[in-house]
Amino acid sequence: MSEKDVDLTSAEEVLGRVTGLLRRKLVAELAHRPDHARHEGPLPAQNVAELQQLLDALHPADIAALLEALPLDERLAVWDLVKADRDGDILLEVSDAVRETLIAHMDAPELVAATGQLDTDEIADLAPDLPREVMQDVFRSLSAEEREQLREAMSYPEDTVGGLMDFDMLTVRDDVSVEVVLRYLRRLDEMPDHTDQLFVVDRAGVFKGVVAVSRLIVTDLEIAIADIMSGDVLTFHPEDKAQEAALAFERYDLVSAPVVDAAGELVGRVTVNAVVDYIRDRSETEMLSAGGLREEEDLFAPLWKSVKNRWTWLAINLVTAFIASRVIGIFEGSIEKIVALAALMPIIAGIGGNSGNQTTTMIVRAIALGQVSAANAAKLYSKEIGVSVLNGLIWGGVVGLFAFFIYHDWRLGLVMTCAMLLNLLLAAVMGVSIPIAMQKLGRDPAVGSSVMITAITDSGGFFIFLGLATLFLVR
Amino acid sequence: MSEKDVDLTSAEEVLGRVTGLLRRKLVAELAHRPDHARHEGPLPAQNVAELQQLLDALHPADIAALLEALPLDERLAVWDLVKADRDGDILLEVSDAVRETLIAHMDAPELVAATGQLDTDEIADLAPDLPREVMQDVFRSLSAEEREQLREAMSYPEDTVGGLMDFDMLTVRDDVSVEVVLRYLRRLDEMPDHTDQLFVVDRAGVFKGVVAVSRLIVTDLEIAIADIMSGDVLTFHPEDKAQEAALAFERYDLVSAPVVDAAGELVGRVTVNAVVDYIRDRSETEMLSAGGLREEEDLFAPLWKSVKNRWTWLAINLVTAFIASRVIGIFEGSIEKIVALAALMPIIAGIGGNSGNQTTTMIVRAIALGQVSAANAAKLYSKEIGVSVLNGLIWGGVVGLFAFFIYHDWRLGLVMTCAMLLNLLLAAVMGVSIPIAMQKLGRDPAVGSSVMITAITDSGGFFIFLGLATLFLVR
Repeated sequence: MSEKDVDLTSAEEVLGRVTGLLRRKLVAELAHRPDHARHEGPLPAQNVAELQQLLDALHPADIAALLEALPLDERLAVWDLVKADRDGDILLEVSDAVRETLIAHMDAPELVAATGQLDTDEIADLAPDLPREVMQDVFRSLSAEEREQLREAMSYPEDTVGGLMDFDMLTVRDDVSVEVVLRYLRRLDEMPDHTDQLFVVDRAGVFKGVVAVSRLIVTDLEIAIADIMSGDVLTFHPEDKAQEAALAFERYDLVSAPVVDAAGELVGRVTVNAVVDYIRDRSETEMLSAGGLREEEDLFAPLWKSVKNRWTWLAINLVTAFIASRVIGIFEGSIEKIVALAALMPIIAGIGGNSGNQTTTMIVRAIALGQVSAANAAKLYSKEIGVSVLNGLIWGGVVGLFAFFIYHDWRLGLVMTCAMLLNLLLAAVMGVSIPIAMQKLGRDPAVGSSVMITAITDSGGFFIFLGLATLFLVR
Repeated sequence: MSEKDVDLTSAEEVLGRVTGLLRRKLVAELAHRPDHARHEGPLPAQNVAELQQLLDALHPADIAALLEALPLDERLAVWDLVKADRDGDILLEVSDAVRETLIAHMDAPELVAATGQLDTDEIADLAPDLPREVMQDVFRSLSAEEREQLREAMSYPEDTVGGLMDFDMLTVRDDVSVEVVLRYLRRLDEMPDHTDQLFVVDRAGVFKGVVAVSRLIVTDLEIAIADIMSGDVLTFHPEDKAQEAALAFERYDLVSAPVVDAAGELVGRVTVNAVVDYIRDRSETEMLSAGGLREEEDLFAPLWKSVKNRWTWLAINLVTAFIASRVIGIFEGSIEKIVALAALMPIIAGIGGNSGNQTTTMIVRAIALGQVSAANAAKLYSKEIGVSVLNGLIWGGVVGLFAFFIYHDWRLGLVMTCAMLLNLLLAAVMGVSIPIAMQKLGRDPAVGSSVMITAITDSGGFFIFLGLATLFLVR
């Protein structure tokens, strides 16, 4: 994103802009026409002019938010009104699901034109969503150097540093003086966004260090770059995980960082805005997966698309529910004799799942921060087991009393207490083990741990409770 | 954080540093002594020297991560070895829970000294954790201007722009020339971190606009600041929500932004690193609350602290489980007659909960992005209801077949299908309604929506399934 046409002057206005509510309402009203007129032609001329004026004043990111909040037909009506030279920037900003709907509405020449205003790293971000023939045309329209960059950018997965990097950096040689550099900078119209430092390379293009822009300003003109550059800087390789770059930006408060290849040559840079987008995307992916969604969903997706987005987790949950159901099935004889078991068993399963998820959430976070190692795993187990015993006694006591007061049977209450204690123990042990095992197997512990722990505490809870009841209550 | 002593030269090393694993192991080994020796005196001298050398080379944020990953006694042993002049920076970086354990281990003079290296906005961040008498000493040690800043910073809640802002900005007057500004900058040792722009004020301190540092470099010396400044910029008020600032930084790719008071006077600035920390904190709070934890927990917290951190959600879940249990209790007579109901009912409740959480997760996200309005709420309801009917037919059919194959009773299968359809409908309607209602009541929809929807689909699912079974199967 090289655009920066923010035209706000007060925070009240920010409110209006950031939430976009006011404008969105207005647009919705303008786009709101009787159904029969909707597909029959363009909007009335004065509305079009008004809308276009509004849209021209908005930042591409705001237009993207607006498009995401509109139902499909209104979304496409607004999309048609957006000036063609802003299409590319807006496509970059919208969510994957909404981008698909917009691209489906554009023809090949429009798409090629849209990429015309973008940097090569930005085209690479769009590439997976563009038809093959459009990408061929795009390649043809680029210079040799740009083609090379685009190939480079497209060769790295989204979750690597190569996926985050751009090529929009300023490089200088280490054997020139500050004066030469300043003269070079003055020739530029403007510096690329997020240029807090210049990257220093030698004649062969090998990365040597950085010079902060603020340092340039306060240094005498005749000093050589080599004398004021800092050689001791954090560099990334394109294959490094994006997650590591994000942690480093967060910890060391970076604005930009150099990316070098195996030979030490400078190939690009990562900027904090790419990192912010990555952090946001990743936390959203985690939230969505915790909520049982495969990916970000267009709010107004067609039904079958939504169903497709949701079926994976529903199917997995259904399988675990079938297993739990068969576990209960084993004990149908006991339930027939003591029907209270049916009413009480969901309590044991539910609280076990809740407690197991607490443990898992903590461990997943600790793993993400690199805080779990072989050295402290034993301590983690013993702590979680301790907590579960304490919780088991407290909450087991409460549910035991509950069962006693409802069914006036102290032995039933005792079985409840023991079952709760055992299920919380199971939850603690599996709550630590599952994320650690997933990590060891090279999978993301943030995705799926919760479903697994819940499955275990459900089936396990039913088995423990009904098993104990069968042993001690049924005869 | 003004420190920037990163001393890495390659990404391989970053790996070692970012995850901290290698060093952590080493430290753990060094700190690992037989239990009887642990509380009896300092570490052996050569180990101390080795450890201290390691610690001195680490960035405060890395030491913070290290401390969080160590059990309490080793954590305090390492903390004692950290140079006193870095205490403040490290306290800022550790999690709230771990900070508490470190502060409990320090005496008042140490704490006052630790704040000595911090900016006033950073002291404000620590203030809630510091004993009252320490804060009094801190106030006494500050200049009048700093006291004013500290009071200002402490007066805003964490989740406002005032809570994010710092006072480390460079201001210039609009009636001076570029040459004067450059001369002024040359007198500074270095610019504050994240100085991508200077803030322009008039004689009265009223904010007029900004000048990008990169602009200064490429402009002729005799030009007046007023001629190159941009007056059309995004400003915040200290009372604005931090969430809005975060959205704006994300959308407009900002590095810093001015904060002005009601009179238009410049009072501080927000930088992207504060925003990154805020985004990370907020997404962590959401993850923790989704996992049923009240707040970030010290991995090695004492048992009773962990129990306290977890009891709220456990108690709430227990209440909802009791209610669900009593719903089942109403139908004990039916279960006695058809014991298969007991084995089948968790399937209806479980899949309903899963589906409801999918809807809620999507709506919560849309609300956070300001995409839900009165204008499109009806469309959202109709879409979710459509999805739930489709899902209800598909998955209801599957569970109906499951019930039929296990129990060879087609009427039971039909009741399963209908119950699933109805519970998914309930999940869809409540999944949209709950977050919208919480938003209207001024509560954070991200916290608690999941528990509520699960409670409703549990009790509701049991009621619908057992009710239908009682009506159509039991006679």
